[in-house]
Amino acid sequence: MSARELHLNAFLLNTGHHEASWRLPESDPHAHLDLAHYKRLARTAERGTFDSLFLADSPVLFGDVGQRPAGTLEPLTLLTALAGATEHIGLIGTASTSYNAPYDLARRFASLDHVSGGRAGWNIVTTAGAEAARNFGLDGEPAHAERYARAAEFLDVALKLWDSWEDDLVVADKAAGVWGDGSRLHPPRHRGTYFRVEGALDVPRPPQGHPLLVQAGSSEDGKRFAARYAEAVFTAQQTLAGARAFHADLKARVRAAGRDPGHLKVLPGIVPVVGSTEAEARRAEQVLADHIVPEHGLRRLEHLLRQEPGTLRLDARLPADLPPEDAVEGAKSRYTLVVELARRERLTVRQLITRLGGGRGHLTFAGTPEQVAATIETWFRSGAADGFNIMPPVLPAGLDTFVDQVVPVLRARGLLRHEYGPRRTLRGRYGLPRPANQYATPALV
Amino acid sequence: MSARELHLNAFLLNTGHHEASWRLPESDPHAHLDLAHYKRLARTAERGTFDSLFLADSPVLFGDVGQRPAGTLEPLTLLTALAGATEHIGLIGTASTSYNAPYDLARRFASLDHVSGGRAGWNIVTTAGAEAARNFGLDGEPAHAERYARAAEFLDVALKLWDSWEDDLVVADKAAGVWGDGSRLHPPRHRGTYFRVEGALDVPRPPQGHPLLVQAGSSEDGKRFAARYAEAVFTAQQTLAGARAFHADLKARVRAAGRDPGHLKVLPGIVPVVGSTEAEARRAEQVLADHIVPEHGLRRLEHLLRQEPGTLRLDARLPADLPPEDAVEGAKSRYTLVVELARRERLTVRQLITRLGGGRGHLTFAGTPEQVAATIETWFRSGAADGFNIMPPVLPAGLDTFVDQVVPVLRARGLLRHEYGPRRTLRGRYGLPRPANQYATPALV
Repeated sequence: MSARELHLNAFLLNTGHHEASWRLPESDPHAHLDLAHYKRLARTAERGTFDSLFLADSPVLFGDVGQRPAGTLEPLTLLTALAGATEHIGLIGTASTSYNAPYDLARRFASLDHVSGGRAGWNIVTTAGAEAARNFGLDGEPAHAERYARAAEFLDVALKLWDSWEDDLVVADKAAGVWGDGSRLHPPRHRGTYFRVEGALDVPRPPQGHPLLVQAGSSEDGKRFAARYAEAVFTAQQTLAGARAFHADLKARVRAAGRDPGHLKVLPGIVPVVGSTEAEARRAEQVLADHIVPEHGLRRLEHLLRQEPGTLRLDARLPADLPPEDAVEGAKSRYTLVVELARRERLTVRQLITRLGGGRGHLTFAGTPEQVAATIETWFRSGAADGFNIMPPVLPAGLDTFVDQVVPVLRARGLLRHEYGPRRTLRGRYGLPRPANQYATPALV
Repeated sequence: MSARELHLNAFLLNTGHHEASWRLPESDPHAHLDLAHYKRLARTAERGTFDSLFLADSPVLFGDVGQRPAGTLEPLTLLTALAGATEHIGLIGTASTSYNAPYDLARRFASLDHVSGGRAGWNIVTTAGAEAARNFGLDGEPAHAERYARAAEFLDVALKLWDSWEDDLVVADKAAGVWGDGSRLHPPRHRGTYFRVEGALDVPRPPQGHPLLVQAGSSEDGKRFAARYAEAVFTAQQTLAGARAFHADLKARVRAAGRDPGHLKVLPGIVPVVGSTEAEARRAEQVLADHIVPEHGLRRLEHLLRQEPGTLRLDARLPADLPPEDAVEGAKSRYTLVVELARRERLTVRQLITRLGGGRGHLTFAGTPEQVAATIETWFRSGAADGFNIMPPVLPAGLDTFVDQVVPVLRARGLLRHEYGPRRTLRGRYGLPRPANQYATPALV
């Protein structure tokens, strides 16, 4: 093993990250709603000694059910079910700070951390989009800055709640009839701009102190938020140079915030299309591309780029007069990534749709197991990544292939553990300490 | 088996329903926070072919951690974990209509129903108490009638969301690239007094159509709500006559609401203290009573009766001038039950605390397995109950005893199934049909 450890996260999404994956002969179009599918994937990831698995989420039915598999299982429910089907792997679920109450969400994540023995992680999102807002009593999407201000206060409250029980609160003196030490209970009595939360959490401090805090927004607001709170960051990066710049910028921000830069792990996404030869990998990529319905991609691209339906032409380039990132609300960084990708590579809309079909802006890499592992190593060793968010284009097959063919190469190169070690929590896997309790009386030395 | 089937629900609470249970030598004072404890209980209940198990909840840390085990695991998290550890038993969890958003809660219950194969039940509560309100941004408890008005609208929205996917929405035509039939999707577009919810649920219609709807409030507002929505009702009843009157009243209300009275099951709670002789059962009851700290019970009783601390005297009776039920907010029916119990039996405050220590107002019955079974049969055959909410005073021992000693007698009397039959859903166990989808086009006959 190298001194620095490569971290791997399995991003589990439906029948795969490629939007046409469900149309392949081997794909089960009901799989994304079937616990058995996810159990199989989780066990495969555990066979590959991944640090964690991850579920995305937005509380809204996305897109057009006519075009591709829609619907989901609520992530914390699914992760709890997977906790019982696995032993080691971390369980990271997405939840929104815009459409949850801190007391409720804090207790749910604390409970997941308890039932999983310290394997819970929270991917903190502010939830872009007016559709989600309208499921929660709002007329439209709150402004980007407003969502992040609420998110910061949400985190402060959640951290107070997770710390509201000191670790050694329980006395359990049966003879005296005294169960706990009330002086070790710390009700937040929080009165802020967005939240008022009076009482202590009704769940004891989680095994990890608090769940691993993950963040994935790469906008300016997102990076500021990550520097302050995040312990792992998922990011979409198309180029090595861009990824290095992002990594350096984020670590500098973490340092500036007074935190240890080693306590934030940066994990770019990669869609590995693996073949026994490079040609075979390219053929697999082409088969997937051939299953895309370009007209479906067109509607989604127009939505992402805030263009009226019918504005874009499949065989033309993007219009020159798209608004700057500052002028758009929601999913800001993905907006910029897509526009820059199209301009940099002079793609037509049709080509752009094909590029986005695999990983929605994440890096797609087609090659042999050796080539995939070499790319991962290059990014890892050149300061572009602390690990990777593995996004197989087709599931379950793509994860099987990665674990059976790429993982052995990563292990042979000394990048990846051969088995899970004694560190049992998700935080332990990511090399992060258990946080101190903000309310605890410091021990006398 | 008798034509009419006795339903049994296991109400799982900490180390047992008796408030002093944790002080017994055999009790683990950490058990209520340990998944293994609940797994063991769930499997025991399944060995006893119970219809369901049930977890109470309020999003607040109750009482004084000094006095007895406090804290909990969030019920839907715990039930999801138990779904993986059991095969047959229904999983009923409490959730509040006052402190949740319908879109979020509907997807969580739908997800639990999916991962458990149709075993989810929702105990609908409006959540009494200012403490919970202050964890969710409010200054105090909303008025009782207001809470129930919100609950009714919450149910209407949740039912729309669960019906928002027709059962046969998925087409999965890979060749054509068509996954679902968008005309079978029915966004609620709900704009009401308390909620605005625009879009379809992001989870397909649950296996049961919707989770079993359970209710436990016995106030006038509670009974009205139950008549309209509930499919099972948990209730605290101290006398056979009172239970028969409640049962008849509720069934009449269900009929008046245009529903089939057989589609609502009434389950009074019973705390069975079982001994091999009556004297042994009484001794076990006395041992528990001796472990109560009366001063702790006094504070809780004062809180329940809206009396200032220091008002009640242990060896005196209740004051004559307590306010009528109409004048109190929150936990109305329990208020009346406690006051009537004390007056009917001329109890001192100390005696009342001992009586409430076992089941907080639920019927406590000490006797041999035959006597417990006979009481259950009498209530069941005389129109006082469609089944029972079994509330063992000590856990896990009390549930073991019930399943090993009382269940065989119930089976011998032809009241209880010997094994789970082919009906796989919770709704099936309770003899309830799968509800039709309110949006589905009626089939031509």
